[in-house]
Amino acid sequence: MGPVVAVVGGGQLARMLAAPAAALTINLRALVEAGDGAAGQVIPDAPVGAANDAAALNQLVAGADVLTFEHEHVPGELLAALEADGVAVRPGRTALANAQDKVHMRRTLTNAGVPCPQWAQVRSVGELADFGDRAGWPIVLKKPVGGYDGKGVRVINSAAEGGDWLTDGQVALAEEKVDFAAELAVLLARRPSGQITTWAPVQTTQVDGVCSEVVAPAPDLPEDLAAQAVQIAERIAGAIQVTGILAVEMFHTTDGRVLVNELAMRPHNSGHFSIEATTTSQFEQHLRAVLDLPLGAVDQQAPWAVMVNVLGSARTDPTTAYPQVMAAYPEAKVHLYGKEVRPGRKLGHVTLTGTDLGELRRRARAAADLLEGQGP
Amino acid sequence: MGPVVAVVGGGQLARMLAAPAAALTINLRALVEAGDGAAGQVIPDAPVGAANDAAALNQLVAGADVLTFEHEHVPGELLAALEADGVAVRPGRTALANAQDKVHMRRTLTNAGVPCPQWAQVRSVGELADFGDRAGWPIVLKKPVGGYDGKGVRVINSAAEGGDWLTDGQVALAEEKVDFAAELAVLLARRPSGQITTWAPVQTTQVDGVCSEVVAPAPDLPEDLAAQAVQIAERIAGAIQVTGILAVEMFHTTDGRVLVNELAMRPHNSGHFSIEATTTSQFEQHLRAVLDLPLGAVDQQAPWAVMVNVLGSARTDPTTAYPQVMAAYPEAKVHLYGKEVRPGRKLGHVTLTGTDLGELRRRARAAADLLEGQGP
Repeated sequence: MGPVVAVVGGGQLARMLAAPAAALTINLRALVEAGDGAAGQVIPDAPVGAANDAAALNQLVAGADVLTFEHEHVPGELLAALEADGVAVRPGRTALANAQDKVHMRRTLTNAGVPCPQWAQVRSVGELADFGDRAGWPIVLKKPVGGYDGKGVRVINSAAEGGDWLTDGQVALAEEKVDFAAELAVLLARRPSGQITTWAPVQTTQVDGVCSEVVAPAPDLPEDLAAQAVQIAERIAGAIQVTGILAVEMFHTTDGRVLVNELAMRPHNSGHFSIEATTTSQFEQHLRAVLDLPLGAVDQQAPWAVMVNVLGSARTDPTTAYPQVMAAYPEAKVHLYGKEVRPGRKLGHVTLTGTDLGELRRRARAAADLLEGQGP
Repeated sequence: MGPVVAVVGGGQLARMLAAPAAALTINLRALVEAGDGAAGQVIPDAPVGAANDAAALNQLVAGADVLTFEHEHVPGELLAALEADGVAVRPGRTALANAQDKVHMRRTLTNAGVPCPQWAQVRSVGELADFGDRAGWPIVLKKPVGGYDGKGVRVINSAAEGGDWLTDGQVALAEEKVDFAAELAVLLARRPSGQITTWAPVQTTQVDGVCSEVVAPAPDLPEDLAAQAVQIAERIAGAIQVTGILAVEMFHTTDGRVLVNELAMRPHNSGHFSIEATTTSQFEQHLRAVLDLPLGAVDQQAPWAVMVNVLGSARTDPTTAYPQVMAAYPEAKVHLYGKEVRPGRKLGHVTLTGTDLGELRRRARAAADLLEGQGP
């Protein structure tokens, strides 16, 4: 009974798909890196295999209604082969290419007339120097492929500093370092049939390139810029024909513009607040979207939602903090992903909803601190 | 990482424990009737076995922090043996006895000074006649053990009608047939350490003895009676030292009293609305309570929540109604339990939250109708 959704990846994003899948009797099958990992712990149908293993992918999709992803690491040629075999790959290969290669993404967005920071693909220190002199130092240098959570991204003050990423014919993406008032994210879901629902823009705070806090909706964003941010995200969704969740990370610049920073085509850290705060969570919506089912309402119930990540812990088992956290913050919604503790690792998150934004931020941070093994 | 909660039972209640268990990295282990049943489909650690099989129970609790239940069918002597072995059985045997035997429950409640309908244990048609003449015909006759969802309960107009439940030394529970304005339920959770949190009373509507609709909070309940209902439930919880969820079904009588009808000591159909409508769901709260963790807040976010059960379906696979249901009711939270369709069987439920009670009831009913295969 119910459709079968195959997902590549065994981390917290696949794990958090399990709850809405169970509610809707959607049979979730996850290709996981380890049977006892974040997703394998809670999904009965979780074969172990690599995302770049054609045989594992073929087994994964056998009898499935659709194939989707919690990360961008399935090679494009394998996606092409699956599509050629008639598998419903959602998001599709051509959309996903924009999340796999940042240079390709910049090209696509620029062609679609989407406002981006100044950028250039650079192949040498000379090209990097030219770009930096034009855009103004310091600049941001990115590896086009494989970066995440601050990895594969550097701020450099001279072309010489970036030389080590330009050896052996490597290319890099050079970008203007934008002065921003805030970082934003716009999440939406799109079905193959074209229906789109978009959450209100949220404000994200990164520390060392890793998301630390999300406030929904974005508190200091003028209405016209919020509308513009939504328009941009929806324009991108249509241009690349994405299916499932699209997360568009943006800068709200100090001079009052909205520029696109990054794209992700899967449930995204900036949308975890939606589990408790909006009628339909990003995880349920992703399942509905990739199955081409009508999308759910995304209204936010309380005026504010705050999500704070749990990044590393001084505790070997952060669940041992529950007596403290739950006593002090009975309103906190705690999520831990069953992941082994490592310094700075995303182990979980805490969401609070309510009316007093300052208090919500303070209490969400304090609850996360306890899970991180800080505090009394 | 995380504690291990062992639960007896493989139905929808165990299934709905899986989501909060995953969120909190609580390792759920369910003793299920069938591996492909409602709980077995979504819980990786789901050994198959019977609730009255001592060996299966012993295996279930090996390494677990606590044993709990989604039904009342574990024999008391097995519970006693587990407790004697030092297993944390929650709710405990003596509390659970009140959910297993309705005569025992009536005795306990009466001794605790809790208002009940007039009742008597009857062993013969003669005793039944005496009770009926005293309480006034018709009366309600119940089997003390094993009834649920209207099974094991009859309304009879004469003692002769009840004779078939009094053969071979069987006893029955005879109860006054109460004139009620509404049926209510009060849910609470209690920890071993004594902390209690109580949800606001809800109104339940039964059709043929099966819960059809729940409205939270109870719409036509005067404040003083609501407070009295809460007091009664909390008095029972303390008297029987329950741990985990206690559901107290009550009558709001036409003459303005509150009388206790039934008890359940597990997540209960009348509390499904809490998944979306209150800060902490009954399923998360049950896990917290049986693990003796501090209980979560139970505030209701929206003014009203309405839950309607999906009872049977003209569709072989009710998920095939999703295109219709989701298009027409994007705000509906649909839950299906992965159970094979049978006439009248509880297959799922739909919850809506909002401000316009009439509209919520109408739309929740209509969404459930579509899942039941009625409608366009």
